[in-house]
Formats: sequence, C-alpha cells, structure tokens
Amino acid sequence: MAPKKPSRVKARQPRGFVDRTSADLLAQERMLGIIRRVYETYGFEPVETPFFEYTDALGKFLPDSDRPNEGVFSLQDDDEEWLSLRYDLTAPLARHVAENFEDLPKPYRSYRAGYVFRNEKPGPGRFRQFMQFDADIVGAPNVSADAEMAMMMADTMEALGIERGQYVIRVNNRKVLDGILDAIGLEGDAPRRLTVLRALDKFDKFGAEGVRLLLGPGRLDEGGGKGDFTKGAELPDEAITRVLRIFELADASGEARLDAVRAAFGGHPVVDEGLGELDQIRAFAVAAGYGDERVLIDPSVVRGLEYYTGPVFEAELLFDVVNEKGQKVQFGSVGGGGRYDGLVSRFMSTPVPATGFSIGVSRLQTALKNLGRLGNESLPGPVVVTVMDRDRMADYQRMATLLRRELNGEGRPLVPVEVFQGNPKQFGKQLQYADRRGAPVVVIQGGDEKAAGKVQVKDLVEGKRLAAGIEDNAEWREARAGQELVDEADLVAAVRRILDRHAGRS
Amino acid sequence: MAPKKPSRVKARQPRGFVDRTSADLLAQERMLGIIRRVYETYGFEPVETPFFEYTDALGKFLPDSDRPNEGVFSLQDDDEEWLSLRYDLTAPLARHVAENFEDLPKPYRSYRAGYVFRNEKPGPGRFRQFMQFDADIVGAPNVSADAEMAMMMADTMEALGIERGQYVIRVNNRKVLDGILDAIGLEGDAPRRLTVLRALDKFDKFGAEGVRLLLGPGRLDEGGGKGDFTKGAELPDEAITRVLRIFELADASGEARLDAVRAAFGGHPVVDEGLGELDQIRAFAVAAGYGDERVLIDPSVVRGLEYYTGPVFEAELLFDVVNEKGQKVQFGSVGGGGRYDGLVSRFMSTPVPATGFSIGVSRLQTALKNLGRLGNESLPGPVVVTVMDRDRMADYQRMATLLRRELNGEGRPLVPVEVFQGNPKQFGKQLQYADRRGAPVVVIQGGDEKAAGKVQVKDLVEGKRLAAGIEDNAEWREARAGQELVDEADLVAAVRRILDRHAGRS
Repeated sequence: MAPKKPSRVKARQPRGFVDRTSADLLAQERMLGIIRRVYETYGFEPVETPFFEYTDALGKFLPDSDRPNEGVFSLQDDDEEWLSLRYDLTAPLARHVAENFEDLPKPYRSYRAGYVFRNEKPGPGRFRQFMQFDADIVGAPNVSADAEMAMMMADTMEALGIERGQYVIRVNNRKVLDGILDAIGLEGDAPRRLTVLRALDKFDKFGAEGVRLLLGPGRLDEGGGKGDFTKGAELPDEAITRVLRIFELADASGEARLDAVRAAFGGHPVVDEGLGELDQIRAFAVAAGYGDERVLIDPSVVRGLEYYTGPVFEAELLFDVVNEKGQKVQFGSVGGGGRYDGLVSRFMSTPVPATGFSIGVSRLQTALKNLGRLGNESLPGPVVVTVMDRDRMADYQRMATLLRRELNGEGRPLVPVEVFQGNPKQFGKQLQYADRRGAPVVVIQGGDEKAAGKVQVKDLVEGKRLAAGIEDNAEWREARAGQELVDEADLVAAVRRILDRHAGRS
Repeated sequence: MAPKKPSRVKARQPRGFVDRTSADLLAQERMLGIIRRVYETYGFEPVETPFFEYTDALGKFLPDSDRPNEGVFSLQDDDEEWLSLRYDLTAPLARHVAENFEDLPKPYRSYRAGYVFRNEKPGPGRFRQFMQFDADIVGAPNVSADAEMAMMMADTMEALGIERGQYVIRVNNRKVLDGILDAIGLEGDAPRRLTVLRALDKFDKFGAEGVRLLLGPGRLDEGGGKGDFTKGAELPDEAITRVLRIFELADASGEARLDAVRAAFGGHPVVDEGLGELDQIRAFAVAAGYGDERVLIDPSVVRGLEYYTGPVFEAELLFDVVNEKGQKVQFGSVGGGGRYDGLVSRFMSTPVPATGFSIGVSRLQTALKNLGRLGNESLPGPVVVTVMDRDRMADYQRMATLLRRELNGEGRPLVPVEVFQGNPKQFGKQLQYADRRGAPVVVIQGGDEKAAGKVQVKDLVEGKRLAAGIEDNAEWREARAGQELVDEADLVAAVRRILDRHAGRS
C-alpha cells in the first residue's frame, strides 16, 4: 500500500455554517417568491447592499451590545479601516438611504433577502450565517406606515398558506415600554433599563416566576447543574408586580390589553403617547379588515434591537411543535421589526423616520415544512442516455441533444436529459444512477441495436411496477420490464409517449 | 444655527463594493432564471455552500498565488483557526463533495449562483464582491463531460438571446500548453512556466509584440509614463517564435488549429495526449450540432487558475463595444472553466475527476444590456392612494386593501397599491411622488368627496397626454386632466377600466 499522503486536507466546515442542498434551496426559492410578490403588491421594490460595511456605519445595535465588537465578523482593510460583515439588513439599508438620499423617492419602499452574519457561539438551529427577508419604508413619519407593515406581514403569512388563527402579528410600542421604565423609577438608568428589557424578553422562556427573579434579585439557571447566575435588575416588589401586568392578559383582546396598561401606567406622558399610537394602529388595522385575530396589540412584546424608537412588531406562529427536549411548544416568532427613526439620521443632519420588518427565512421555512406547506420541492428527474460503447459517445451526445430540444406545451424544455458521464464500465451502475436521480426513462443503444438502426427505451416507472410482480430473476431479465425497442428515428416520440403516460397517471 | 453634531457618521461604502438597485436586480434575476433553466435541462440541480471556509480548505489557487494570503478576505476564528471568504465557487464545491462523497450520486451534476470575494485593489468594473454562476460535473472522468459543458455554455448564450456568430465557446487543453512548455525546455521550471502562461494570457491585451517581449527580455509598460517594467521569461527567440504559433490562426477552423499545433509540437507525448482529447471534444460537439461557429478548438486559450488539469473553456462574446478609452474592442470573455481532477482529491484518498464552468454574472449582464437583451426590467408602478385628510388614514388604508385584493386574469394581484406614507401636508408632493413611482392611477378623496360618497380616480398616463395639449395653467387645473369622479363603490371598477385602457394601448 502506498503511504498516506501527509498533505491531505480535511474536508470540514467552520462551526455554525452549513451547506444547503437541492430540496432545501428549491423550497426556499418558492417561499421567497411568494413573500416577494406580497411585498411588491404593496409597492416595494428590491434593493441590495454588499456584505461588507465600514464597522462604524453598522453601529452597535445588536441585542448583546454590552459586549462591544463581539457578535460581528470584522477585519481590517489594507488602509487600516475596519470592515464588518452585515449582521442584519437594516443598518446597511440606513447607510444606503443616507448615501443616496436626494435620488430616492420619499417615502422609499424597498425589500431585500440576503444572508447576514453573527459571530456567536453556534448551537442547535443557531447558525453564524442565516437569511433574512426585509421590507422597509423610509421617510414615513406616521404610525399608519407601521400599521401597513403589520398588515403586510399578516398578508405574507396567509399567502404562504398559514391559515388565520395559526399566526398573529403582535404589535407593541417602545414608547410604552420606555414610559413604564420611567414610571417605575428607572429614568436615565440605562444599564438597569436594558436589564429589565432583557428580562421581559425572556417571558416565553422562563415564565412569570423566572422573569420575576430577573427583575428582582437575579436568577440561578438550574439547567445542567452548572448553576449560571444571571444578575437581576433589583427592582422593588411593587414595581415588579406592576410591570408584570403587561403579561397578564394572555387571551384578552387588543383593546382590553390597552385598557389594562392604561389603568396601570396611564397619565405618564410617554406611556400615553405610546398607547395613543397603538390605538391608531388598531383603528387602521380594524378598518382595513385586520382584526385582533390577525394584528393584535400586545404590550408584552419586547424586541431586542436597540435602534427601535416606536411601534414594534412580532410575527408569531401559534401552532404546536415538539421541541428538542420532546416538549410540546408553540412554534413562536418567525420575524419582527419596528420603527427606527434614529438609524438613517445617524448619517444626516435631518430626521429620517423609518419602519420595517424582517423575516427569519430559515425559521419560517421550518414552520412551513411543519405545516406541510413546503418540503416536497424537487426538479423533474432526467432522461439518462446510457453508455454501452465508449467509442460512440458522440452518438449518445447527439441523442441527448435531440431530446433536449423538445419542448412541452408551455414552450419549456420537455424534460432534462443527461448522457451518463461516469465510468461506463458497469452497466448496472448506470441504471442505479438513473434510479437514484429519479429518471423517468433511460435510453440504451448497444452495438446490435445500432447496427439495426434501433434504440431501447426503458420506462423506469413502469419497470418498477412490473418488477414488483416478478419473482424470478431470470424471468425478470427476460421480460426486460418496461423496455421497448424502437427505430432510432422514433426515439423522441417514444420518450414523449412514456412521459405522457406518467403525466396521465400522476 | 445649531452646531454640527460631532458624532455624525459618514454614509459611505468600502472601496470595491456597490449597492444594487431595482432595475439591475430585476435584470439579473431574469438572466439567472434563463441560465438556470438551461442547466436544469442538462440534469443539474442546485447546491449552495456558505460564504466562509477554513482557509486551508480553499487552497491557494488564485491566478496571483505568488502573493500568498493576498487576494482573499481572511480572519481568525475564536479557536484561532483561519477562516476565509470564498474567492470562487469551485473550491467550496470540492470541499462539499469530499465531505458528502458517499451520499452523492456519481456523477454529481450541480449548479450554484453566488457572490465571491477578492481582496484586491478595486478599479473600474473591478469589484471586491461579484457574482458567479457555476455548473459542475464531479465524478466524470472522460472528455465527453468537458464537451457537454462546452455545449451547455453555447446553449446558455443562445437562450439568453446572444445569436450564433455573436459568441463562441473556445476550448483548449492544459495538457497541450503543458506539453508545449516541456517542449521548449521548461520542464520542471515552475516559476518560468507560470511567467510564460501569464504572458500568453495577455495576448488580447498586448498583442503579439507585447507577448514576445514578456516571453523574452521583459516589457516596459508605457501607459501613464510611469514605466512599470514586467520581467520576461527570458526564452530564446526560436522558442518564442514556436510558442507564438498558437496565436497565428485567428480565422482558421478548429481542425486547422489542431493541425498547426500538431505540426509544431506533435510527437511530444503530453501534447499528443492533449490534442487527442481536443480531437474527441471536437467530434462530440460536431456530432451534436455544435460546429466551429459555436464550440471552437483554440490552442491559444489560457485560463489563469492553477487547478485546471485538462480541457479548459472560455465563453467569448464577439461583438464590438467601446471601451473606457473610447476604442472599439470585442466584448470578450464572460466566463470560463475547465477540468480540475485534483481539486476534490486534495481531501480524499481516491481520485475524483471533475469539470465545470463559471459565468461572470455582472459582465454577462453588461453584455446583454449592450445587445438590448436586458435592461428594461421594472416592476409595474403602484396605484397611489393619496392622503387629503390625515385623520382619515383608516379610510385610505381600507381603499388600498380593497384594490390590493383584486386579481388579474392569471390569479395574481392586479396592481401594486400604496397609501402615501410620507408627510401629506403638500398635496403636490404626493402627485410628484406618484409620478416618480410610475403610478398608473392615483386615488383622491377629500372631505367633500367623502361627504358625497364619491372618490376621484386620476389616470396619470392620460393626464400626461392631455397636459401636453394644454398650454394655460388655469385651463389645466380646470380640466383636471384624466380625472373622473366615481361612486366609492365603483372605485375598483374604475381603476380596472383605466388599467385595461393602458394595457390595450401598450
């Protein structure tokens, strides 16, 4: 045996990155096409920014921005300036709009799907490269635009086949949360405000008791015995009880939820302003036919990103799935967004109000697979022209070209066609390949057939059906199940007949 | 005046990266769709790898690999391993295939479009992020697969509307070039071989005299007076003359070109092997109907990437364009590829032969624009529901929703619809916006109309036509060109009538 080459490289991927194969990509494409058509119906048009931005242009708006420079892939350019890979599609859009402000229509409605990167510890279902699909209106100062975003998200869910009742677009307002934080005495206390917002954002995960601990003395994570302690916000009990009211109306109407917050915190000017905006959003949505079962005002929604300044949204899927621990849980969020009036104006001397929404593409794709709305996407199997005689590749190429030129009723190619390009020595491997590729037909021409001006055309679907009834191997070979010998000139017609037969059967 | 905020961030992009807007993206999408359908007709299916690979998995195969670690964007992961952004789509495919070898059909036909990154000095038309569209057959040992790739590229050009005669797929063989280098005495002299290949690759740019200098004593670049001197390969005159024969048959047939090389270098075993393969490729192509005007054997083709081991291709567009210096030049290459039998087996103990082709997407897009085959892609303009009365946004949203639900004959939404989400104070700005967005119709409802249960529907196309005949501004206002007052209940029908009128006219 030859010694193993010492220089061999290991074929492996960096942690948190994955390859994606045909069925997955075709399903994604179908999904993106549907989303895109909804966005276009609302007058949005595509725009795309590159993967790199100057690090200072991106800003530090990640939820974990207390770890500065973490979370982002950055490198230094040859002029010493720092570049970062985008971590979302909103910060780059803000840069694009600021840079091209004079040339853009205002308001400016745009959409884009693209990969974003997070330099974080990967985990199950948690990748360092993932796709988002965003829509934004820049230059839209009024909450009617926020209402429109929420309604468009509801339309998107339904266009994807998620039925009414299986999803809800929850809407809150950062002003309401900000006002509540002021009201419980945290005005100006940025670090504790952040701690409280993060605690509230954990309600789904830890429930009321867990959040109560995070708002108070802190919480010991019992998972795995490691006992990670998360420092609490040290709020007094009375404040905690007041704050937790925003979660106490799980099945209530949007109006009742608004009333409850108004009862607890009304009179505080920032809370009142926020509630007023939510009243308006609710009115717009209801007038356009998007009642509570589609667009629901919910004061418990917290969006982690720090750049939000007004209404925030979350698209939530309500059906149950089984999680990795075997527990039945609601599918949960597949996207969200909100108003970010400060993000474009970081670059400009004028205020530029904006609102937008981001879909987590792979999470939504998982959800649609769970619902049976996606997942069986595949390309039609190719006709495989087999190679009996290596010296006659030119003949096989010619047959493939002939078949490839045939069109179906819609003027598209009738069927994919391949010449077998592997090692043709073992004919059985060629048939295995055809089977593996889902070929409907294989074409066979050996020397005898060639001499007689004939070609064998084998229907693999029929062949499999017949084979199921044949027990004896010799009988099987004799029968050449599903195979017919036709004149060379009849090749195309014979393949067409078989494809028509399959189409009629399915 | 308030002092300028010191903290304002400048909105700018890193050098060599660009934003892409609607018309560009829509044109690209149409083009990619056409290419993809051709690839699928040949039995190829999509697969996608992530943007990052381990640096050692990518290898150093860039044309300028004498500058190690340059040309690539790299950064160190938190476990100290080096990651790089992919610089092409072939090296990551090789890693993917090696990693999943047992699970893939063999041969494995796949395609993928995606951005790649080069950390180089950007220049006009030279970006650090650009898109490639590749197709590869892995596990295909014979030149029939190379022939198929060349034919598929010819089909791709024609499917895109590039007529026969406007393109040619040139095919050479790395073995022919290697044998020629051996034959002129450079066997084993890797650095000089590279210098010679680079020199030959500059024929289009510098012509025979320039290449003669690069093969001999070296060449002084006269451009700009800076006088950059490129060191030559120091070949003797006789060798230079022999090598330059590969360029001497500019208008000859593929057969004549093969004969010429055979006459000059025949008898050398590596040259003969390479010529034999080219003979076969030519025979396959001709038999399938891809003669010299489509797939042309051309021994002068040099592809820069070092991983090629056999046949190489180049898709060249033959029509003239005017370059940045105002000179008429042939459009030139829009893609290329070749056989890379060593790339997958870097990771494996068995040889894995492979061949593939890569299209430079943006160059091809530019070419198609030049030919008038692309470039007028745009989304239909939206119906704009204007805002006369800020308090009645809910009414306007409702009208927009009604219109948005209307379907055309194909079951798709009839027309995009927007409520004006900018500042509604100046009505003129709303009409300007509608015009800017290519709106076919605007919907107007002020308090008077509302009270009467009416709505104004304005045909902007008709309006412009009429306006052209109205000289007097007062007359114009009076005429309310193209505008009609309809019952609220008739809004949808009225918009449909106008759109039908536009469709009939165009």
